[in-house]
Amino acid sequence: MTIIEAIPNISEGRQRHVIEKIVDEIHNLPNCRLLHYSSDVSHNRTVLTLVGSPSGLTKAILRLYEKAIQLIDLREHYGEHPRFGVVDVVPFVPIQKASTSDCIKLARKLGQLVSKQFKIPIYLYEAASTRIKNRALEDIRREQIKGTSDQTEKQSYGPDFGPDSPHPTAGISAIGAREPLIAFNVNLKTGDLQIAKQIAKKIRTRNGGLPNVKAIGIRIANRKMVQVSINLTNHEQTPLYLVFDTVKEEAERRGVKIAESEIVGLAPTLALVTTAAQYLNLSTFKPEQILESQLCTQFSLPRNELRTE
Amino acid sequence: MTIIEAIPNISEGRQRHVIEKIVDEIHNLPNCRLLHYSSDVSHNRTVLTLVGSPSGLTKAILRLYEKAIQLIDLREHYGEHPRFGVVDVVPFVPIQKASTSDCIKLARKLGQLVSKQFKIPIYLYEAASTRIKNRALEDIRREQIKGTSDQTEKQSYGPDFGPDSPHPTAGISAIGAREPLIAFNVNLKTGDLQIAKQIAKKIRTRNGGLPNVKAIGIRIANRKMVQVSINLTNHEQTPLYLVFDTVKEEAERRGVKIAESEIVGLAPTLALVTTAAQYLNLSTFKPEQILESQLCTQFSLPRNELRTE
Repeated sequence: MTIIEAIPNISEGRQRHVIEKIVDEIHNLPNCRLLHYSSDVSHNRTVLTLVGSPSGLTKAILRLYEKAIQLIDLREHYGEHPRFGVVDVVPFVPIQKASTSDCIKLARKLGQLVSKQFKIPIYLYEAASTRIKNRALEDIRREQIKGTSDQTEKQSYGPDFGPDSPHPTAGISAIGAREPLIAFNVNLKTGDLQIAKQIAKKIRTRNGGLPNVKAIGIRIANRKMVQVSINLTNHEQTPLYLVFDTVKEEAERRGVKIAESEIVGLAPTLALVTTAAQYLNLSTFKPEQILESQLCTQFSLPRNELRTE
Repeated sequence: MTIIEAIPNISEGRQRHVIEKIVDEIHNLPNCRLLHYSSDVSHNRTVLTLVGSPSGLTKAILRLYEKAIQLIDLREHYGEHPRFGVVDVVPFVPIQKASTSDCIKLARKLGQLVSKQFKIPIYLYEAASTRIKNRALEDIRREQIKGTSDQTEKQSYGPDFGPDSPHPTAGISAIGAREPLIAFNVNLKTGDLQIAKQIAKKIRTRNGGLPNVKAIGIRIANRKMVQVSINLTNHEQTPLYLVFDTVKEEAERRGVKIAESEIVGLAPTLALVTTAAQYLNLSTFKPEQILESQLCTQFSLPRNELRTE
């Protein structure tokens, strides 16, 4: 069976009763399983991880939109994480017997259904893009904040489905297809937002930093800390420990210590095992030495050696 | 189906053609799968990991004994790791729908069969012991080297099955039942064996060190290094990173650096993920955030939070 992962991000991370109502709505549906969800008070955002068949996911996510639009008003939403919609982003990732093109098809179909049913502008992004190749989420965010005056650029702008203007309470929504990523946040023991922003700029690919890294610096509400909020889009090419070590080094150069870090949603075993192998200075550890990888044949890890430095 | 893990250790780690003949003998048998094997030149020892049903394992291991006894002569075996038999130890570990008592039953049955078929003294150890409770492998090793003159102690000594004296070429063999352990070796950048011995003594439970740790200091053949060779018998109570950090700290106190480390055989995901979580300073990582743990329902990880310091 084709299994796809969906990671809807919704713009509510503070009101427990609202989050629970939305989660309950999609909890026990056929051909779809909610694997995990976590809410962040500072971000004011909840990240859900679902796996299922394309039709199971479509039905579940339509219900998620319905409930979220009913319960959340974007005009009253304030959080540290950038957002433009009540259901802010919905990326699809291939998991089992699924290709990126299955995810593209699903993203486009869901986009049409959501725009029709809820009158929300839908922006397709990354592999699911139609207007330009691999439209980036950051570009859609920039467009929402700044618009554009450039006539040639305008061709690549705007939604793929639905009205041109944002929905009054639900905003817009981005639906995409992409490879798996690790959402990884590092909190710094300083209240100085500039330091988080400097480090984010230093490590992200866009500004000449590490490959496969997106990063922003944000403030953490109610805490005397700032955060480097990272998306690592290929942990096999850029190991998780290298990202962490680089943030740590850059922080130390500025006289700042790491407070703690977090992984939002799910991460593949291999990313964590590679990190452990680096920590322990393991010379020849192979993924096949992980007991569970041998016992669970349905989802097996790659058989190549881990890279450690 | 009852699935048990067996980890036979055989006293040959240098002659490729001998090792391969023994491995080939048990490679494709019914109800038994060879998951992994690795040979160590310094130890002159090969560690195999098999999983299977009790009857599948019994048949495979009897063939392993037959081939190993035919091809290896203990009188010509020299290695850094202590050993007393051609098939030195065979521990059984419960994996799926299996209890320790299933492993005890299997160990005792195999012990009888081996002693009868090959005329080798069989010592039952740990949970499978009969003469005293939880007879330790170290005590059997000590008995082989030193014997005993104490009449009261003698009652707990000697084999459970087979002749009283070691087989001329195959020695004795220890068969046991135990909980899973992690075999973890740390190599130090020094040729001074005393340093490895001191650190082993410092960290092992027997001498007041860390709980759940067995350790010896040994020389590495052909290399200017020594090794702290560790068995960690409960990684949930004593995390793997704590063992590594303690060895590192003790080495540094003696002006010695860690060269590299290795895990012999298999290790559970959780031990490595806990280590990664410690490295990355993850504040709230849960095993359910491991993608594969969610997808593979047959062998699931515990749902409690990871302990990090």
